[in-house]
Amino acid sequence: MTEKTVGNDNSQLVLSLDEATGQNDDVYVVHYDLSDIDTKKAKDEVERLIQDCTKAGLQSAVRVGPECSLLIILKAPRDLLGNAVHRSRIKDWLYGIIDARPKGSYDTVVDGETETENLRSMFHLVTWKKELGGAGIMPGYRQWKQVRSVFPVHNRARNRALLSKFSRQATLNRSDLDEIRAVYGEKVAFYFCFLQSYIIALVFPSISGILAYFFLHRVSLLYAISTVIWCVVFLEYWRMEEISLSLRWNVQGVGSLKVNRREYVYEKEIQDPITGEKQQYFPKRKQVARQLISIPFALAALAVLGTVTTGVFGIEVFISHIYDGKYKAWLEYMPTVILALCLPYIRDFLEGLATQLTEYENWRTQDRHEMSQTQKVFILTFITSYLPVLLSAFVYIPFGDGIINWARVYFSSSPGWEKLLAPDIHVDTSRLQSEVIALTVTEQISGFGEELILPLIKLRAQTWYSNWRGTNRGFNYSRSTGAYESAAEVKLLRQVRDESQREPYSVHEDIQQMVTQFGYLALFSPVWPLVPIGFLINNWVELRSDLLKISIDHQRPDPVRTDGIGAWIDSLNFLTWLGSIVTAAIVHLFHDTEKLNDPKTWWTLPITIFMAEHVYLGTKYLVRLALEQLGSAELRQKKLHEYAHRKTVFKEYINDDTAGTVGTHANIEKIKQESSKLAEKPPERLRDIDAMIEYLKGDSASKS
Amino acid sequence: MTEKTVGNDNSQLVLSLDEATGQNDDVYVVHYDLSDIDTKKAKDEVERLIQDCTKAGLQSAVRVGPECSLLIILKAPRDLLGNAVHRSRIKDWLYGIIDARPKGSYDTVVDGETETENLRSMFHLVTWKKELGGAGIMPGYRQWKQVRSVFPVHNRARNRALLSKFSRQATLNRSDLDEIRAVYGEKVAFYFCFLQSYIIALVFPSISGILAYFFLHRVSLLYAISTVIWCVVFLEYWRMEEISLSLRWNVQGVGSLKVNRREYVYEKEIQDPITGEKQQYFPKRKQVARQLISIPFALAALAVLGTVTTGVFGIEVFISHIYDGKYKAWLEYMPTVILALCLPYIRDFLEGLATQLTEYENWRTQDRHEMSQTQKVFILTFITSYLPVLLSAFVYIPFGDGIINWARVYFSSSPGWEKLLAPDIHVDTSRLQSEVIALTVTEQISGFGEELILPLIKLRAQTWYSNWRGTNRGFNYSRSTGAYESAAEVKLLRQVRDESQREPYSVHEDIQQMVTQFGYLALFSPVWPLVPIGFLINNWVELRSDLLKISIDHQRPDPVRTDGIGAWIDSLNFLTWLGSIVTAAIVHLFHDTEKLNDPKTWWTLPITIFMAEHVYLGTKYLVRLALEQLGSAELRQKKLHEYAHRKTVFKEYINDDTAGTVGTHANIEKIKQESSKLAEKPPERLRDIDAMIEYLKGDSASKS
Repeated sequence: MTEKTVGNDNSQLVLSLDEATGQNDDVYVVHYDLSDIDTKKAKDEVERLIQDCTKAGLQSAVRVGPECSLLIILKAPRDLLGNAVHRSRIKDWLYGIIDARPKGSYDTVVDGETETENLRSMFHLVTWKKELGGAGIMPGYRQWKQVRSVFPVHNRARNRALLSKFSRQATLNRSDLDEIRAVYGEKVAFYFCFLQSYIIALVFPSISGILAYFFLHRVSLLYAISTVIWCVVFLEYWRMEEISLSLRWNVQGVGSLKVNRREYVYEKEIQDPITGEKQQYFPKRKQVARQLISIPFALAALAVLGTVTTGVFGIEVFISHIYDGKYKAWLEYMPTVILALCLPYIRDFLEGLATQLTEYENWRTQDRHEMSQTQKVFILTFITSYLPVLLSAFVYIPFGDGIINWARVYFSSSPGWEKLLAPDIHVDTSRLQSEVIALTVTEQISGFGEELILPLIKLRAQTWYSNWRGTNRGFNYSRSTGAYESAAEVKLLRQVRDESQREPYSVHEDIQQMVTQFGYLALFSPVWPLVPIGFLINNWVELRSDLLKISIDHQRPDPVRTDGIGAWIDSLNFLTWLGSIVTAAIVHLFHDTEKLNDPKTWWTLPITIFMAEHVYLGTKYLVRLALEQLGSAELRQKKLHEYAHRKTVFKEYINDDTAGTVGTHANIEKIKQESSKLAEKPPERLRDIDAMIEYLKGDSASKS
Repeated sequence: MTEKTVGNDNSQLVLSLDEATGQNDDVYVVHYDLSDIDTKKAKDEVERLIQDCTKAGLQSAVRVGPECSLLIILKAPRDLLGNAVHRSRIKDWLYGIIDARPKGSYDTVVDGETETENLRSMFHLVTWKKELGGAGIMPGYRQWKQVRSVFPVHNRARNRALLSKFSRQATLNRSDLDEIRAVYGEKVAFYFCFLQSYIIALVFPSISGILAYFFLHRVSLLYAISTVIWCVVFLEYWRMEEISLSLRWNVQGVGSLKVNRREYVYEKEIQDPITGEKQQYFPKRKQVARQLISIPFALAALAVLGTVTTGVFGIEVFISHIYDGKYKAWLEYMPTVILALCLPYIRDFLEGLATQLTEYENWRTQDRHEMSQTQKVFILTFITSYLPVLLSAFVYIPFGDGIINWARVYFSSSPGWEKLLAPDIHVDTSRLQSEVIALTVTEQISGFGEELILPLIKLRAQTWYSNWRGTNRGFNYSRSTGAYESAAEVKLLRQVRDESQREPYSVHEDIQQMVTQFGYLALFSPVWPLVPIGFLINNWVELRSDLLKISIDHQRPDPVRTDGIGAWIDSLNFLTWLGSIVTAAIVHLFHDTEKLNDPKTWWTLPITIFMAEHVYLGTKYLVRLALEQLGSAELRQKKLHEYAHRKTVFKEYINDDTAGTVGTHANIEKIKQESSKLAEKPPERLRDIDAMIEYLKGDSASKS
C-alpha cells in the first residue's frame, strides 16, 4: 500500500487525519451495503445520499469498502460545525440545561470544548431530519435500508494514550473520567464512572468478606447485615454522584431537549398556549396504559423461564437422586445440555417480544425508549440468572428430601421402575455454596476470556487479516481501475474499512453485566463471602478491558448525552431490597443446617425477614437524610454559579438609569429624610409620649 | 367615643384605614409593655425605637394601649413600600425563585400583587436588621425585651367576606385558596390547602367505612387494606399538590433566600469563591452531630411518657380487675386524675427541652428551625396520643388475662391482700373499640367547643368588653389629658387595642391537630370504620372555624412564605407506614377474638404484617411512578414559561448583529453553496462512483 496511484478523485475532500492531534471530530462514515440491491437502484440511492449530505452542507467522498460495500466519508467544513456547536449550546440554554446564555449572534462559530462536543454536532448534522438541518441518514431506516451503519472514526492515538495511562493507575479520578467523556461522550463515561465508584466501594465488602470467611461462622448474620447496609450506602452515594457528575458535565435534564425518535407516532399537533410552538401530542394516559402491558409480559416471562428452569432442575434431581437405570452417567448431563440449548432461543424470543412491546409504548425520545427496554431486559436477566440459585436455596435443600421420598414411593409402586431406583441419596446441602461459587467464578472467568483474551487474539488476527486484505480485491480497486487514492488517505481508509466491519458498542450490555454481578453480591454473598474480593479483582481488569474492547472491537460510539445510568439504578435498588430479604432468609435457614427441619426455624423466618427488611428501609432513610443534609458539592456550586451570574446582571439595576421604564421611581434617601422630618418635632412629640408613659406608669403604680 | 378631642398630636401620621378597601397593608403595630420597666428607661427605649423606625424610613405614632402599655403604630410611605416590594422581587430572582428578571431600575416603585406582598415587605422593614434596611424590632429579643408583639392589622372587611363566602360553599377551589393566600400569606394558605385536599380525600374512606360498618365483618381486612392504600394515594397526591401550589405561588425553594435567624451563631465568615460574597459559616457536620442528640431525646421521651402511661394503665387495670377493697369506686378514677394532672407538666417540660435542643441545633433560617421543632413535637404527640390505644390492643387484650392471673396469684399469697381481691374478671375485649370511639369522638367534640363555640362566646364577650372598655381609663387618656385623637383614628385604634391583646396565631398547632387526626385514621380506623365520616364532618366545619378563629381570636399572622406544610409531611408518611403495620396486626388479632389464644394466630402474625407492609410499599412505589408519569400541570407550565421566556430573549440572537462580538461568523448559506460546488462536478464524480458500484456488483455476482 505504499504505492501511490494518481487517478480521478471523486471529490476534493482531503481524506486524512491529522496524525499529531488525531483530529477527526468532523468526520462521520456511512457504510453502504451493495449486496442486496441492484446496480441501477444502488447508483440512484448513493447519488441521493450524497445530495442530501451536500444540502446539509457536508462534504463527501465515496470509497470502496470491505466486501461488496461502499464507504461514504462525510466531513463538515469547520465553520459549519462550529456554528452547529454554538446553536446546540443555545438550545441547551433554551431548555434550561445551562444557565448562562451563550454569547454571540446566531451565526457565531465556536470551538467545541471537547472532541465529543464537535463530534456530537457532526452526529446531528448527519442523522437529524432535514427540517432540523441534518442530512437525515439513519442506518436501516426507511429509504436507507442499505445503510449498515453510520459511525464516527476512532481517535486511535488518544485511545492508546488513555489505555496506557489507566493501566498504570490504581483508580480513576474525576479528571480521568472527564477524559473518557471527552473521547466517548457522557453516556459511555457514566458507565465508567459507575464502574469506578463500584470498584472503590467493593473494597469494604471484600475486606469484611475475607474476615467473615476466616473468622465468622459459615453463613454469618453479621456479614449479611453489613452487606445490606453497604449496598444501600453505595447506591445512595451513587445517586448523589450521578447528580454531581451530571452538573459537572452540564447534562442534567438533558433528556427533555432530545429530538423525537424517528419511530415516534403522534396523534395530533397542538400549539402550545404558552410557548406558541407546535407540539407533537400523544396522550400520556394512553402511554401509561400501554406500559401496563409490561406486567402480563413479566408474568408470562416468569412463567415460561420459570417452568423451563424448574423443569430442568427437577429432571436433574430426578436423575441424580432417584434414577439408577441405564445411561445414568450420560443422562446426568442431559438437563444441562437441554438448558444450554433452549435458553438462548427462549431468551431471544422474549427479548424480541420486549423490543416490540417497547416499540408499541411509543416513547418520544431514544432515552426513554432505552430506559423502558432496559427494565424489560432486567426482568429476563433476573429470572435466568438468579432463579436456579433461589430454587436450590428455598426449594431443593429444605424440601428436597421430602419431594424425593415422595417420588421414590410413587415410582417404587409403579411396575417396571423398582429396579431403576437409586439407593436412598440425601439432599446435598452444600449444593447452594457450590452453585454460587460456580456461577460467580465461571462468569468472571468467561468474562475475562470474552472481554480480554478474545479481543487480544482478535486484534492480532485482524492486524494480520487486514494486512492480507490490503493486497486483496477491494483494496485493489484503485490499482485495477486507476481510481485516485492519495498517499495521505491510505492510513485513514485502512482504519475506516476496519471499523466499518465492527459491531456498534452498546453500553447497556456492559452495565447489565455489572448489575447482574451486583445482584449476586446483594442476594447470595453470605453463602460464600469471598465473592466480593473476586468481583473487586475482576472489575479492576474489567474497566480497562472494556476500554480496550471499545477501541479495538467496536465502532466508536455516537457521542450521546445522558444524565446517569438511567433505569439501571432502579434495578440496583430492587436487587438491594430483595437482597435484604433473601440474605436474611438464607442466613436464617443455613446458619445451622442441623435445625433446618425444626418447625421453630420456619415460624421465626418471617420475623427475621421482617427485621432484615427494616434494617434495609431504616438505613436507606437515614443515609438519604444524611446525604441530603450534607448535600452535593456540585449542586451547591451550580446554585452559587447561578446566583453569581444573576448578581452580575443585577449590577445593571444600579448602573442603568434607562432601565427604569416601568413604574415610578423612589428616592429612598428623600423618603427617609421626610420621615425623619415628621418625627423631628422632638420637643412636642416626645413631651407627649413622655406624658403618656408617666400617665400609664403612675396609674399602674397607684393600682399596685 | 364619638366625642372628638382636638389636642396635641404626636405625629403627622394619619391613623385611619380606608374603609372601602380595608387598606392596611402598610401598617404594623408594636405593642410595648410598660409594666416591668421604670419610667426613665421606658422613655429612652421608646425614643430609640421611634428613631430606629424613622431611620428605616417608617412613620410612627404612639398611642395609649390596653392596660399599662403603649401602641406604636408604624406606617411606610407608599414609595418606600413599593420600592421594598420591587427589591424583594429582585431578590427572588437573584435566588432563582422566579425566572423572569423584574423590569425597572433599582429604585423602581411597584404595587404588590396581593395585600400580603405589600405586608410582607412592611414586615421586613420593621423586623429585619438595620444592615438589611429594617428597623430591627423583634419582640422580646435583646434590647426589645419590653416589646410584647409586633403584628399587622386585620383586614376585617375582607375577613368577613371570606368567611361568609366559604360558609356558603361546599368546597374551596384554587381561586379561593389564592384569596386566603392574599390575606394571610402562603404559610397559612398551605394549611388550608392541605385541609381542603384532606376533606375531599376523606370522602372515599367515609363511604367505604359506612359500607364496611354495615356490610362487612367487625374488623375487616378489606377495609383495612383500602384505608392503607387510600393513605398512600392521598399523601402522594398531596406531595404533587404542594409542588403545584408552590409553583403557582412562586414560592418553590423560598427557604434558601430567607434571612438568618437572630439567634443563629456562626463560627466564621468566609468569602465565597464563586459569588464573592461573605457567607456566615457553621459546619454542617457539627449541625448533623447536634441533630443526632434528637435520638436519645426521643428515646428518653418515650421512656418517660411510656412509663407514665403504662404505669397509669397498669394501676387502672389493677384497681378495676384485681382490687376489691375500700374506696374502689373512688380509686377507679384515680389513674385518670393522675394522668390528667401529670401529663401537661411532663409534656410542657419535654417540649421545653425540645425547644432548647432545637435552639442548640442552630439552624440558619426560621423555616428549618420550625421544621426541626415540628419533628420533635410530633414525637411527643405521637407517644401521648397513640400509646394508650396501642397498649390496649397489643398488651391488655391479648396478654391481660395472663398478667392479671399472675398478679392474682402473687397477691393472694401475700398476707393481708386475700380479702381485697376482686372476683375473677376477664379482660374486656371491647375496650379497644370503646377507647377508639372515646378518643376520636371526644377529641372532635372538644375541638368543636374549643374552636367554634368558645370563639363565638368570646366574640360576643369581647364586643361587650371593648364597649365597656371604651369608657375606661386607657381609652380616656386623650380625654383626661387633652391629647389629640382624631375622629378618623377612633375605629382603627379600637381595633388595634383589641388585637394587641390577642395571641399570635401558630399554624403549626392547627396542622399538628390534623396530623394527629390522620394518625387515628391510619392506625385504628378498622376498629371502628365510622371514624372517617366523623372526621369528614368535623373537618368541614374545622376549616371554617379555623378561619373564624384567626380573624376574631388571634393577631393577624405575619405574611411568611413557605413552599408547603414542611416537616409534617414526613410525620404523615411515618403514620401511614406505621398504619400499614398496626392495622394489619389489629385485623389479624381481632378479626376473630375467639382465636386470640390460638398459637397459630401468633405465628402467622409476622406474615400478615409482612404482607400488609408490602401492600404499603408497593402502592407507594406504583402511585409515585404513575403520578410522576402524569406529572404536575403547574410544573409543566413553569418549564414552558421558562422556555417561552428564553425564547423571547433568543430572538435577540437573530435580530442583533452587534451581539456577535465573540468568535467568528459563519455564513451558513455560503458554506452550503461551497459544499455543493465541491459536489457538483457531476459528470466525472458520478461516473467514478458508478464505476465503483459496477466493479463491486460485478465482482460479487461472479462470486455467487
